[in-house]
Amino acid sequence: MSELDPGKQEIMDATFRALSKHGYGDLTIQRIADEFDKSKSLLYYHYDSKEELLADAVNYTTQQFIDELQLADASPTAQLRHLVDRLLPETIDSEQRKTQVALLELRSQVPHVEVYAEQYTEVDTLLKETLTDIIENGIAQDEFVDVDAAREAELLVSILSGMRTRRLTSADFSAEDARDALHAHLTARLFKQPSSGE
Amino acid sequence: MSELDPGKQEIMDATFRALSKHGYGDLTIQRIADEFDKSKSLLYYHYDSKEELLADAVNYTTQQFIDELQLADASPTAQLRHLVDRLLPETIDSEQRKTQVALLELRSQVPHVEVYAEQYTEVDTLLKETLTDIIENGIAQDEFVDVDAAREAELLVSILSGMRTRRLTSADFSAEDARDALHAHLTARLFKQPSSGE
Repeated sequence: MSELDPGKQEIMDATFRALSKHGYGDLTIQRIADEFDKSKSLLYYHYDSKEELLADAVNYTTQQFIDELQLADASPTAQLRHLVDRLLPETIDSEQRKTQVALLELRSQVPHVEVYAEQYTEVDTLLKETLTDIIENGIAQDEFVDVDAAREAELLVSILSGMRTRRLTSADFSAEDARDALHAHLTARLFKQPSSGE
Repeated sequence: MSELDPGKQEIMDATFRALSKHGYGDLTIQRIADEFDKSKSLLYYHYDSKEELLADAVNYTTQQFIDELQLADASPTAQLRHLVDRLLPETIDSEQRKTQVALLELRSQVPHVEVYAEQYTEVDTLLKETLTDIIENGIAQDEFVDVDAAREAELLVSILSGMRTRRLTSADFSAEDARDALHAHLTARLFKQPSSGE
């Protein structure tokens, strides 16, 4: 299905609504169709299985997300702070939480469903590459100390992934403490000087 | 059910076998009973629902695991290295992978099932406390630099959680790269001097 298809966003919204309502185990393509206002045959025409539809939903959501992570024409420091703020905002509303819960649920199915495995591998690779680029630029522009960019990106992907999962699954997780720990890490390991607003 | 019940390990094994075989969505208490060699009525007697049984399985497995994380009478540096090696070994066999996949699947259900939420909150809290203790001891014994122990523990729990999830769900995850990144982090941020074997 084309990325530009105007009905796509509505299909994706219906998919996440159905997933939130029924949970992965009880989700069927019929239940997704029930959440979709337009022609249900359109949905059946494009997707053969719930797995295919859900993989596309992961791809669509994360592509949008990755696009929003990038800040053109900003300094590497500002880009990195922006990325952290997008992935680990101070607060999330109930809609954001629902989407993140759905994405975690689908990620946990990766070992069982190959088409999810491809999506999540792509997501992680894209995020790691984006971080590596920002760190390399930061070093080149003398904003960051001279670290191994790929190694630091590897660490940051895991920190962000771990904090996002814990936010959804640990009652005593504090987003404030997590963000403090992450910013302290960046200040100690990466930034040459404390930037304003810290 | 008492922790000392000799049948407990067998019930837990049956539970993880059934979860691996059927996946969370298709798991029923009957299917767990089918994997259990002994009296099935014993299982029904102790557990009212699959959720209750699975929560107990998470508790049992992680309690065992947390016990193994501790190294009595070792230096804080050795304790921390041991903990990292247990949580993020160089390789995992297919049985370990199955158990970790099952635990991730159950964690993804935390937002839907309150009794899992309690278990995973306890797991994360216990791990964070263990790490905080090791770091505080390391500082007191002059092996570690003087960091904010709770903040560093917060970061380490997320790093380990993120790496463990990525190991199961990202095809391009490299355990070697992840362990390198983590050890580089500990060396840069925590250890006063490189310990032997590095």
